[in-house]
Amino acid sequence: MTLLSSDSVTSFGPAVALACRECGTRTELGPHYACLECFGPLEVVYDVPRVTREQIAAGPQSLWRYKDFLPVPADVASQPGLRPGWTKLVKADNLARELGIRSLWVKDDSGNPTHSFKDRVVAVALSAARQLGFTTIGCASTGNLANAVAAAAARAGLRSVVFVPSDLEAGKTVTTAVYGGTLVAVEGSYDDVNRLCSEVAADQPWGFVNINLRPYYAEGSKTVGFEVAEQLGWHLPEQVVAPVASGSLLTKVDKAFKELGAAGLVEATPYKVFGAQATGCSPVSQAYRDGTDVVRPVRPKTIAKSLAIGNPADGPYALDVVRRTGGAIADVSDEEVVEGIRLLARTEGIFAETAGGVTVAVTRKLLAAGLLDPDAETVILNTGDGLKTLDAVAPVVGPSATIPPSYDAFQKAGLA
Amino acid sequence: MTLLSSDSVTSFGPAVALACRECGTRTELGPHYACLECFGPLEVVYDVPRVTREQIAAGPQSLWRYKDFLPVPADVASQPGLRPGWTKLVKADNLARELGIRSLWVKDDSGNPTHSFKDRVVAVALSAARQLGFTTIGCASTGNLANAVAAAAARAGLRSVVFVPSDLEAGKTVTTAVYGGTLVAVEGSYDDVNRLCSEVAADQPWGFVNINLRPYYAEGSKTVGFEVAEQLGWHLPEQVVAPVASGSLLTKVDKAFKELGAAGLVEATPYKVFGAQATGCSPVSQAYRDGTDVVRPVRPKTIAKSLAIGNPADGPYALDVVRRTGGAIADVSDEEVVEGIRLLARTEGIFAETAGGVTVAVTRKLLAAGLLDPDAETVILNTGDGLKTLDAVAPVVGPSATIPPSYDAFQKAGLA
Ligand SMILES: Cc1ncc(COP(=O)(O)O)c(C=O)c1O
Ligand SMILES: Cc1ncc(COP(=O)(O)O)c(C=O)c1O
Ligand SMILES: [Zn+2]
Ligand SMILES: [Zn+2]
Repeated sequence: MTLLSSDSVTSFGPAVALACRECGTRTELGPHYACLECFGPLEVVYDVPRVTREQIAAGPQSLWRYKDFLPVPADVASQPGLRPGWTKLVKADNLARELGIRSLWVKDDSGNPTHSFKDRVVAVALSAARQLGFTTIGCASTGNLANAVAAAAARAGLRSVVFVPSDLEAGKTVTTAVYGGTLVAVEGSYDDVNRLCSEVAADQPWGFVNINLRPYYAEGSKTVGFEVAEQLGWHLPEQVVAPVASGSLLTKVDKAFKELGAAGLVEATPYKVFGAQATGCSPVSQAYRDGTDVVRPVRPKTIAKSLAIGNPADGPYALDVVRRTGGAIADVSDEEVVEGIRLLARTEGIFAETAGGVTVAVTRKLLAAGLLDPDAETVILNTGDGLKTLDAVAPVVGPSATIPPSYDAFQKAGLA
Repeated sequence: MTLLSSDSVTSFGPAVALACRECGTRTELGPHYACLECFGPLEVVYDVPRVTREQIAAGPQSLWRYKDFLPVPADVASQPGLRPGWTKLVKADNLARELGIRSLWVKDDSGNPTHSFKDRVVAVALSAARQLGFTTIGCASTGNLANAVAAAAARAGLRSVVFVPSDLEAGKTVTTAVYGGTLVAVEGSYDDVNRLCSEVAADQPWGFVNINLRPYYAEGSKTVGFEVAEQLGWHLPEQVVAPVASGSLLTKVDKAFKELGAAGLVEATPYKVFGAQATGCSPVSQAYRDGTDVVRPVRPKTIAKSLAIGNPADGPYALDVVRRTGGAIADVSDEEVVEGIRLLARTEGIFAETAGGVTVAVTRKLLAAGLLDPDAETVILNTGDGLKTLDAVAPVVGPSATIPPSYDAFQKAGLA
């Protein structure tokens, strides 16, 4: 099915085609995601215009400041949307001290409209859906993407049909359903949900953001990398630690750094990309450890549900980035995830969801193992919000005391 | 107790004194909050420097861009803190259409670091605490303030001691406790908690942000008004609708509009300020309806717990602002609050907490009553985040269907 109209080339801005990541075969821009020659995944190819730091700085305070590096029309910022991105890059001196690292930053994507980095990828996918004539958007989601799709569709006046595993946190189902779209709870794992959605996408005239719109969607994650570099004062960090579910975010941060270097917006200094997984769903970390580029699917069992993708589509590409740049991938137990959440909250006042706990705990582990350099400028990505995964910490944090409303009771409680 | 050092005058920036709101008597800047003459509340008095729109626009992308109108030192933005503010002003065309109003904006303070406008007041109070030499900050809170104080203290390296009613939502207790400060759950209403904190504040060398630091704290809410005017392109809206708990926010939005006019940053055009309460805690709305300026304390019973202050300190001042500007105050049932939350989510993709539901529902009610002008440019304040009050909507929103992971099951569910 092609819904593409004839003036479509300009409506994707600087994007000129899709190309296979495996064999390089080109396809026209459209709702395509697999190469017709080899079934490899498609990626957007650009003819990037010359753009200066000043032009970017004068742009919108959202991810659209980087529209010249995205498959979106020039007027994208004036389309109805949630305007995610341009989140805070926080200098994390307290956390750095505790971890024994010299210069540490947290890119805090919990500040996005639905409080995860998924608002970025959805924004780009929604723009593509609009260009391609879809009036319904959908997704297979571990939770955050569901929130982001339902909210963005509501504001844009599109229908949404969102599929999630039925065992998700209330913080992610209620938050999706409240926007009024269709929410389908599927009795199975994320990988089951994903398989079902591929079948639905083949049959319904819907734009699934992470299936038939995936090449556009994935480009949205580049904006995390762009913002980090701009917020550091237009240079690349030496080390970056990213959580890994499908592996897409990690690969796109690398792509962003390369694109900025190629465009002359930053000096193309070397950097290392590190990946973080929960041990209960660590197929990419396992492959890294085994020295292979074959990612063996697993059945996830971890509290880090947003990262619980047992069969990660971009796993091999994530491995490739990590090995090429000299990084590493590690995984941590659920207990370490909870400790990671608490450490970040206690030191920097940032309450991350489990995915952020994974990233902090893996950072600590990689430092202990000597794989992260404590003297190199390091950025870690907090991609989600602790309010969505309260169950993870509720058993271990609570009131210091519960007292009757009297000063006497307060004094007896010994809290002064 | 005065912890003020001798060079204190300059460390509060443009602030020169405290003055009684009732009798005008001046007091030096310090941890004072009640007039020694008449026990009236104290307010910060300034000698505001000349400042231009361009200087403000070139400032930080946080509430500190307005430091020249706040009791904070010139270098406040370089102090460790959460940098709240500069949240989105969202053009709400879909909601406007449903409500039958021409030009509607939502000031969305759920985008703050701990997802409520309380991060603003805490940021100013924390700066004052630092100037006054406090190393522990505390508060009496209905929940959001607790989150904001605990998070800000964590990042600033101060101790926090936070008091909340013991029946609070998990989304507000866990979120406070995770930052690692002291959290005291009090078996009683907010008003009981507040009374207890006044006793504690009299005895302990702590800065209670909404008690002995209240004059500084309250000024933080002005930044909501400043941002609205700047984001509208430096003009005042004709109507603004604010939720009312203690009544402080509402009065400070008015103060902000007056200060901008006096400073020549906007034309001093007329505006009307409207207040929103939940019927189950509506002492200010009741007084408005009764045509009195005596606010009779009530015992709150509403799902809008963040607004559940039965004895509102600034109630009379809020009434005064509303009457002086030609606005109104109304209240809505808990069912209408839930409808308000769903309406905002469905139309604009913004998931508000109960306080936001109150504001949307009251806006609808005031329009129906002809008290809000449907042709006047209107801003409503969403001050909190739906993720903190999931219980309010959980009974009425959920999956459209729960199905086994098969295409057959999907088709049978009739969702296509
Ligand atoms: C909070 C959060 N962080 C990280 C990720 C990982 O993203 P990716 O699938 O691009 O690896 C996800 C994916 O769902 C997520 O929800
Ligand atoms: C979300 C939210 N909105 C509004 C208010 C009202 O603030 P005020 O006490 O200044 O009237 C509060 C107070 O706790 C709040 O938490
Ligand atoms: Zn191919
Ligand atoms: Zn007085």
